[in-house]
Amino acid sequence: MIDHSHDAAAISWVESANGHPDFPVQNLPLGVFSRDGGERRIGVAIGDYILDLADAYEAGLLPWANASAITATTLNRLMGLPAADRLALRHGLFALLTRTENCAEVQPFLHLAQACKMHLPAMIGDYTDFYVGIHHANNVGALFRPDNPLLPNYKYVPIGYHGRASSIRPSGVPLVRPNGQRKAPDADVPVFGPSVRLDYELELGVWIGGGNALGDPIAIADAAQHIAGFCLLNDWSARDFQAWEYQPLGPFLAKNFQSTISPWVITAEALAPYRIAQPARPQGDPAPLPYLFDADDQAHGALGITLTASISTAAMRARGMMPHRLSKGPASNMYWTAAQIVTHHASNGCNLNPGDLLGTGTISAPTSDGYGSLMEQTNGGKAPVDLPSGEARTFLEDGDEILLTATAHAEGFVSIGFGECRAIVLPAR
Amino acid sequence: MIDHSHDAAAISWVESANGHPDFPVQNLPLGVFSRDGGERRIGVAIGDYILDLADAYEAGLLPWANASAITATTLNRLMGLPAADRLALRHGLFALLTRTENCAEVQPFLHLAQACKMHLPAMIGDYTDFYVGIHHANNVGALFRPDNPLLPNYKYVPIGYHGRASSIRPSGVPLVRPNGQRKAPDADVPVFGPSVRLDYELELGVWIGGGNALGDPIAIADAAQHIAGFCLLNDWSARDFQAWEYQPLGPFLAKNFQSTISPWVITAEALAPYRIAQPARPQGDPAPLPYLFDADDQAHGALGITLTASISTAAMRARGMMPHRLSKGPASNMYWTAAQIVTHHASNGCNLNPGDLLGTGTISAPTSDGYGSLMEQTNGGKAPVDLPSGEARTFLEDGDEILLTATAHAEGFVSIGFGECRAIVLPAR
Repeated sequence: MIDHSHDAAAISWVESANGHPDFPVQNLPLGVFSRDGGERRIGVAIGDYILDLADAYEAGLLPWANASAITATTLNRLMGLPAADRLALRHGLFALLTRTENCAEVQPFLHLAQACKMHLPAMIGDYTDFYVGIHHANNVGALFRPDNPLLPNYKYVPIGYHGRASSIRPSGVPLVRPNGQRKAPDADVPVFGPSVRLDYELELGVWIGGGNALGDPIAIADAAQHIAGFCLLNDWSARDFQAWEYQPLGPFLAKNFQSTISPWVITAEALAPYRIAQPARPQGDPAPLPYLFDADDQAHGALGITLTASISTAAMRARGMMPHRLSKGPASNMYWTAAQIVTHHASNGCNLNPGDLLGTGTISAPTSDGYGSLMEQTNGGKAPVDLPSGEARTFLEDGDEILLTATAHAEGFVSIGFGECRAIVLPAR
Repeated sequence: MIDHSHDAAAISWVESANGHPDFPVQNLPLGVFSRDGGERRIGVAIGDYILDLADAYEAGLLPWANASAITATTLNRLMGLPAADRLALRHGLFALLTRTENCAEVQPFLHLAQACKMHLPAMIGDYTDFYVGIHHANNVGALFRPDNPLLPNYKYVPIGYHGRASSIRPSGVPLVRPNGQRKAPDADVPVFGPSVRLDYELELGVWIGGGNALGDPIAIADAAQHIAGFCLLNDWSARDFQAWEYQPLGPFLAKNFQSTISPWVITAEALAPYRIAQPARPQGDPAPLPYLFDADDQAHGALGITLTASISTAAMRARGMMPHRLSKGPASNMYWTAAQIVTHHASNGCNLNPGDLLGTGTISAPTSDGYGSLMEQTNGGKAPVDLPSGEARTFLEDGDEILLTATAHAEGFVSIGFGECRAIVLPAR
């Protein structure tokens, strides 16, 4: 089959899709939505609308689709289908939404996205966060360990740790400022109370598709087949708790109070045209060990995605001001590819399952305009960021909202977006 | 209601229960089993038998029980019931199994445990491992950080980290020796291959009962009500991978290839008589911060449990030798109580759910006969342990089996056991 689903000239009869910054017909991201407090349904975003896939299936419009996967209330089964089946779904949806003759039949199953509620796209069995943004690792490492920012293992091991699955929430769910222990450097003892150094972290999320059996690794050449798609991830962090608690077993309560993701799964199939070469490692860096090296992955395993983070304070919203952009940078500032973190994760036989979520870790640029956290932008809280409202921030205050966005772009192709990943900070309880 | 279910004089008409080292009628642990490849059912262990609770419910023998909880294929719903409901189930089962007049009606629903297969008792949403065995923290800390074994946060923060839920397996499932990166201290670069320092860790597991909503903490005075029960947990560890990967974000592939648990949930209700005072902190140690301190928890929040770890090598089994005991020690060697780790975990608003599992971390005694890992017993691999077969071990070899046991005991009460937590090491793939 010739794949026309990326053609820049393709237009949809859903007019709002054409020129849509996030959801033109070349994107077709999958998600889970509900209307009027009703049941959860799988949908695809098209322009300003969501197409209800279960309704479309039941009306006979997707006859070749996997019934139990498409009528489920999460994407887990769909994510676990073979890549060829996921591609067939994309082609079927592309045909439905571009051929004018389908308009009358499909239109009843389109719902204005603004009137729908988005949910987590999958039941997340396990969530793992990596640390592949090398500039972030350098920047934050220098703040926590001035004499030793990048540890000796960093260029050999895709460093990661397990996170909390239960507290992941979709965009729009506010987060409560966490309480916890912090100890000032000059204090004798810690105190317990609301975090005074609440931060965001700009990350990509990787959704696992087909899994592996316990004990069986995933070869690097096969790893891309195990990735169902991507999202945005805000790994909210309480820097004061983190500094006090993280030795020797890593971050815990500093990070597990909530993580926010964008609810649309931007499929691996949709992102195919935006794959780019993994940037060459700096002179002198070791090559990846053989189990992490694949020539094709090095040639096509990175993503041409631009990421942004913006802030909107209560005062800014009261004055009708737009969110203020804090950073903008490319996703290619990752020392390891998505395939490499999947292969590393399974290299000891750890079993991954459809719907598992991997975070990349904060993606920062080498320069401050691309720093993916306030920790970096304010040099550990020493240099406040000025906002257009006349306010300044070192860390987040109650009422602040953080908005993350991402756009994939490639010469000759329409750009596609990830939708919003946003949440507002509520006062501590 | 007067609680006779702990009476030492109580006997069951299931004769094998009377004097049973693990499952006398005073225990009544809950689990999930299947027969002949059939469906999973909730059962209670009584002597050499398992009582099928769904069958008993459907026959009208447990009329007051929660139907959806008791006929489910996991214990999650049952764990999430109010503590009073869980206690009522215990009393009902105690009556059924002690009153001779029930024998004829109940007997058809008893199955010889040896002929049943045990499964994970719950769908484990999230698994967290703590580090509350202070002697272990001291012993292992000295090996990883000779100049700094116990970090400054240890006596203030119940240190914990998130583990992998997907790779937890019940007793009896073999584990495959993991592959991974290790770097010898004198080597320039790491190598990838099978772990050469595979170890076990002797821990208790804490099953979460009722949960908390995201953003809401659990007060220390309420924490015990959120604990459904306990199990044994072997936190298999690849020490060579751990040493190389664990900085700065903690253990990851060194621990997530498999964790083994005993399949029976020893309920909080069953353990009530074995609660003891938390040992006094050594002179000079700080008091717990107020959010972690409750006088009743300090007076009754520890457990009178004796833990053992034993090894059986292939050569020992071929010669018909019994497993060799590696260690024996009390569970009270925990710096924090189970209630304290629950409260700490939720103190930042992190939501716990029924069926979540918390590991205590390795419980070691101050002296070598109670060290809960080979890492400690062999002083980091320098002093091999001699076995009665004439073999010796620094770390585990293929074919070795580790068996963990636990017994709760108190003056004037029958002892109750946890059943077995065992698994054999298979060669790397």
